[in-house]
Amino acid sequence: MIVLYTDFGVGGPYVGQVHAVLAQQAPGSVILDLFNDLPSHDIRAAAYLLPAYTQGFPPETVFLCVVDPGVGGTRRALVVRADQRWYVGPDNGLFHVLARRAQSLECHEIRWQPAHLSPTFHGRDLFAPVAAQLARGRIPESMPAELAASLPDWPEDLPQVLYIDRFGNAITGLRAARLGDSARLQVGAATLAHARTYAEVGTGDGFWYENANGLAEIAVNQGRASEKFDISVGSRLNIIFD
Amino acid sequence: MIVLYTDFGVGGPYVGQVHAVLAQQAPGSVILDLFNDLPSHDIRAAAYLLPAYTQGFPPETVFLCVVDPGVGGTRRALVVRADQRWYVGPDNGLFHVLARRAQSLECHEIRWQPAHLSPTFHGRDLFAPVAAQLARGRIPESMPAELAASLPDWPEDLPQVLYIDRFGNAITGLRAARLGDSARLQVGAATLAHARTYAEVGTGDGFWYENANGLAEIAVNQGRASEKFDISVGSRLNIIFD
Amino acid sequence: MIVLYTDFGVGGPYVGQVHAVLAQQAPGSVILDLFNDLPSHDIRAAAYLLPAYTQGFPPETVFLCVVDPGVGGTRRALVVRADQRWYVGPDNGLFHVLARRAQSLECHEIRWQPAHLSPTFHGRDLFAPVAAQLARGRIPESMPAELAASLPDWPEDLPQVLYIDRFGNAITGLRAARLGDSARLQVGAATLAHARTYAEVGTGDGFWYENANGLAEIAVNQGRASEKFDISVGSRLNIIFD
Repeated sequence: MIVLYTDFGVGGPYVGQVHAVLAQQAPGSVILDLFNDLPSHDIRAAAYLLPAYTQGFPPETVFLCVVDPGVGGTRRALVVRADQRWYVGPDNGLFHVLARRAQSLECHEIRWQPAHLSPTFHGRDLFAPVAAQLARGRIPESMPAELAASLPDWPEDLPQVLYIDRFGNAITGLRAARLGDSARLQVGAATLAHARTYAEVGTGDGFWYENANGLAEIAVNQGRASEKFDISVGSRLNIIFD
Repeated sequence: MIVLYTDFGVGGPYVGQVHAVLAQQAPGSVILDLFNDLPSHDIRAAAYLLPAYTQGFPPETVFLCVVDPGVGGTRRALVVRADQRWYVGPDNGLFHVLARRAQSLECHEIRWQPAHLSPTFHGRDLFAPVAAQLARGRIPESMPAELAASLPDWPEDLPQVLYIDRFGNAITGLRAARLGDSARLQVGAATLAHARTYAEVGTGDGFWYENANGLAEIAVNQGRASEKFDISVGSRLNIIFD
Repeated sequence: MIVLYTDFGVGGPYVGQVHAVLAQQAPGSVILDLFNDLPSHDIRAAAYLLPAYTQGFPPETVFLCVVDPGVGGTRRALVVRADQRWYVGPDNGLFHVLARRAQSLECHEIRWQPAHLSPTFHGRDLFAPVAAQLARGRIPESMPAELAASLPDWPEDLPQVLYIDRFGNAITGLRAARLGDSARLQVGAATLAHARTYAEVGTGDGFWYENANGLAEIAVNQGRASEKFDISVGSRLNIIFD
């Protein structure tokens, strides 16, 4: 199974062009769109979402991860093996949070080169063919590497909003299990207590809950948290532990 | 064939997470996205669209239907067999219009439980595994049931706009065959006559027509009806029979 | 492989309904969404994008091309074979730029008729079944034809913006190889020089580059060209050759 995790957008030709490469080079593989509207060029948001949204997949899944504002520059191209799954993408921080939390980790710099490499679409020309090779059980030419120098201002958990979903819910970079149910989250003028599910709060009330991937998520019962609390990607949170 | 009919949104991770479950638990099945941007949490709009948009599918198709604002509360989970097709989803009214119009109908409450059930994403954790079982020819543990108490203010056909499509066309809850070609539809300040297709009216003119799924749809030749007539989901219609 | 190239939108039921036909009538074929949010009803934009975005596909690929504001009127339905690939869609200009640039070209008017043809959704009822037949190696009933009278005001290359992508980049109808690297593009108040990739210009600076499909594309390093330069689909460009 090859799984796309990108900021290419759900419209436009980019996702389809990547699928075309994968369908040809890994015929018979399941190809699946997990996330294609990650915040544009926001490496950090994608990095904190990555372990949460890829944890449930089976061993040997190949994740094609592209949030790559530095494409065509000097950043390296990587294959990362973490907890028996494969991740392919740029060495720009995208894999740093995953790497911190993985039980097992191996990083390789990709040396394999395609016959044609456009300077601005490595997702199609480099990362997709590498993902296809991995899905077929072949390791492309590569050499052991470390991740690029770590990012000291990236905390263990990120007290920010990383994604606003279709319902106006705000997915954060905080793991719910580390907060505990008595913690409250402050965002803008609002202070929100924990609830387990929508039905536990009144209509129109805000709360935070552990979402189905283990992250704290801010929501409003039968409403839109993003509008009620004026939240957007990048909004900062304060955690109040009682 | 397993067909998604949801309000998850075309962006975000939810559709992909459901596909991941289906790909693993019903390997080899065709998995198809029919509608993933149904109006958020609008059970009634989804209920009136459901029979129109699922009628053309072959016997044994499994529809995974999730518009589920009450997830995590007390509403039951259902498998419905209507006219030789399967429908899986919440017992919140979503299947009421389908049930009224079906020639044959059986309802079952799902008793099967997954090993892990998140309180807010039954689409992934409960309904998708059940759909996968049905697609493989297995009936998950369930017991005969009636649909939840019917909704007395839901008319035979719904004189409202249920969906605005990409072209600004407004799909209504009215079956065109019951209106007849001489009926006119009043929406806001406009009164619209029937035409068979765009070419029958002048450029920029509004009309209603029987769409390719049998519903009355409001359109403008080479224009956007939603903007010209200030229509949105929920806009009410008056029917003028001459 | 059957590839969708349409203006149906990424939301709504239309793409899914076409997939349902293809899955049933060409079982086992790869079905791939290349572009489903082409500018609505903009035949010319779609025509100039078509050769660029379909050139990389393998022989015998079947492209299902639907930008069809005249559906239900008198325009003919075509199968075009160009450079060993198949294209199915309306004879409204959509294939004119492709035809000009093709090395080999054959056009056929479709005579085959489905049992049921809705007047407004030939994509589902006519073009999809024809595409499915082609994918299975069958030529539907048809007769040799010429493309509809050519469009004299369509230049070799189109100095306009044809699509704004998710990053705010503006894809134009100009082939980069015909411009040369010393050409500058004027759009609104801005005059933009060529760069090979983002990293060659300063943060926030605009430039044009040859995109991964050979077209000139206007971008801003770590910014949104569409907003910075107030560009939208249809914006005109001046080319300055030094």
